[in-house]
Amino acid sequence: MVTRPRVLSGMRPTGALHLGHYHGALKNWVRLQDEHDCFFFVADWHALTTHYQERDVIERNVYDMVVDWLAAGVDPKRATLFIQSRLPEHAELFTLLAMGTPLSWLERVPSYKHQITTQPNRNLATYGFLGYPLLQAADILIYRANFVPVGEDQAAHVEVTREVARRFNHLYGRGQAEPILPEPAALFTDTSKLPGLDGEKMSKSAENTIEMREEPEAVANKIRRMPTDPQRVRRSDAGDPSRCPVWPFHQLYSPSDVQQWVQQGCRSAGIGCLDCKQPVIEAIQREQEPWRERAETYLANPKQVHWIVEMGTERARTIARQTMKDVREAVGLAY
Amino acid sequence: MVTRPRVLSGMRPTGALHLGHYHGALKNWVRLQDEHDCFFFVADWHALTTHYQERDVIERNVYDMVVDWLAAGVDPKRATLFIQSRLPEHAELFTLLAMGTPLSWLERVPSYKHQITTQPNRNLATYGFLGYPLLQAADILIYRANFVPVGEDQAAHVEVTREVARRFNHLYGRGQAEPILPEPAALFTDTSKLPGLDGEKMSKSAENTIEMREEPEAVANKIRRMPTDPQRVRRSDAGDPSRCPVWPFHQLYSPSDVQQWVQQGCRSAGIGCLDCKQPVIEAIQREQEPWRERAETYLANPKQVHWIVEMGTERARTIARQTMKDVREAVGLAY
Repeated sequence: MVTRPRVLSGMRPTGALHLGHYHGALKNWVRLQDEHDCFFFVADWHALTTHYQERDVIERNVYDMVVDWLAAGVDPKRATLFIQSRLPEHAELFTLLAMGTPLSWLERVPSYKHQITTQPNRNLATYGFLGYPLLQAADILIYRANFVPVGEDQAAHVEVTREVARRFNHLYGRGQAEPILPEPAALFTDTSKLPGLDGEKMSKSAENTIEMREEPEAVANKIRRMPTDPQRVRRSDAGDPSRCPVWPFHQLYSPSDVQQWVQQGCRSAGIGCLDCKQPVIEAIQREQEPWRERAETYLANPKQVHWIVEMGTERARTIARQTMKDVREAVGLAY
Repeated sequence: MVTRPRVLSGMRPTGALHLGHYHGALKNWVRLQDEHDCFFFVADWHALTTHYQERDVIERNVYDMVVDWLAAGVDPKRATLFIQSRLPEHAELFTLLAMGTPLSWLERVPSYKHQITTQPNRNLATYGFLGYPLLQAADILIYRANFVPVGEDQAAHVEVTREVARRFNHLYGRGQAEPILPEPAALFTDTSKLPGLDGEKMSKSAENTIEMREEPEAVANKIRRMPTDPQRVRRSDAGDPSRCPVWPFHQLYSPSDVQQWVQQGCRSAGIGCLDCKQPVIEAIQREQEPWRERAETYLANPKQVHWIVEMGTERARTIARQTMKDVREAVGLAY
């Protein structure tokens, strides 16, 4: 039996998934299934690090997010889907790894510094938020994952994970040939960043998203209301796609002949902005169609979704428990 | 049925217990059993916060420490004895509480600041060591303990626990009459500080201890070699008990007539230092006798000790699981 390399990735259940999530991560998950043993988890404890004051957000979104995954084409026959908080083993490994992890490793993680300074009103200066990358390290190491798909801004997290694993193996490995906690590698994959309707980063809080399962008519309305090149005030003014938030949508959704048509039509004022937007609307609606179909099946049968998560969680538990057995043995806590 | 107030306390398994442990804590545990539902645990994860680089220390000392407890008179029929690391629920609660706990609450705990500055070569600036009081809070709150027996230097830890509970109840309590995690109170009890053989704090690392189960002859030798009043150089010099490390032993171990005899004999050079030490030697040997007897029974039957811990751990687990059920429900993680 050939074992496929194991991939681990998670998402925080903080709201309906949008096209940014799909193109930035989920599409890649679907591709990864073909050649990897994929573990995808609902990072509900991680959601608490930033949403601990908004109790209902997480509860509401857990299974809905799993439906988004399944809708996108994540295949429960090939991938293992599970919920972090159902596996106290993650917390146990987090606690054990904490003992040997210098504070400085966590304080210097760029995303920590960034969020602390950019979201001062969220009270993020908590012990849990500082420990975010360490909890993530536990999530990854407990499955002895070979790869973690990352965007560039998360590479530092995988680096912390590797450092933590290295230190653990050094402290407790006693020269074994096989490391107790293998170091995972970052998997830089071909993902696309789709900006939001206003040209800024697509995010729920910026209210500039198109949700994966947004109704076709709502999608059309949102795109039609998108701002365009601010210097193209009248229909008769020539525009420049490089200044227009719609252009990145064409880059992602339109074939080259349509892109050409946009460039020429915009720069010559040959087409209006609504003309330009129409192919984008249709492409997104086309993309969403199979998602909606698959989602409908699952939404009509919520027990099946629960069952998928239940099966995945039990498979994850088997592996997590084995790792913790080895870890306790190594640390000297196996009485 | 009248429920007795619940008490929780733990000890770190970092070496054989000595007379300082007995008089400072264990004697009090034995007394508390009469009127409280006592939970005493082996704080092996806590031992890792400072001993994470010395793998074997903890493993070697876990059951040996439980034997010390039983030898001292802790009664497994009345008290619940268990091992922290056997209950991942503690780690889960620790992880959840971390999310809402400001870093500043932990950074200002006096014992943290103290140890970081006094033991610079131990690499204590770890995430786990900073979180020590929070893990302790989880240990206490998960059993909804009413009281935590503390020395004065640990009162700040109970204060953090109370703050953590208050915040949790505030964030997730939704105006329930019963708090989800009741605030424990510090129980300041009558304990005695017994200094070490050199007059400094008794501690293993200072090599100034008498172990609870030290052989009678070894005890006699150690006391005989104790330094005395440095100004009493010759037998014929008069001494002053207030300058003598043996005097605190008399204060703890000798009845008032013996203490009187010491005061007079020392100040008048009527007795020599070895004369003075003899009643202390005998009193300690007498105190140790029942400990040794009880310990012998348990050491001859290690399975019984394991069984006691097993029973205690399962009892603790039942309660810890119920609390975590309520906690998950409150936080919104009960899918």
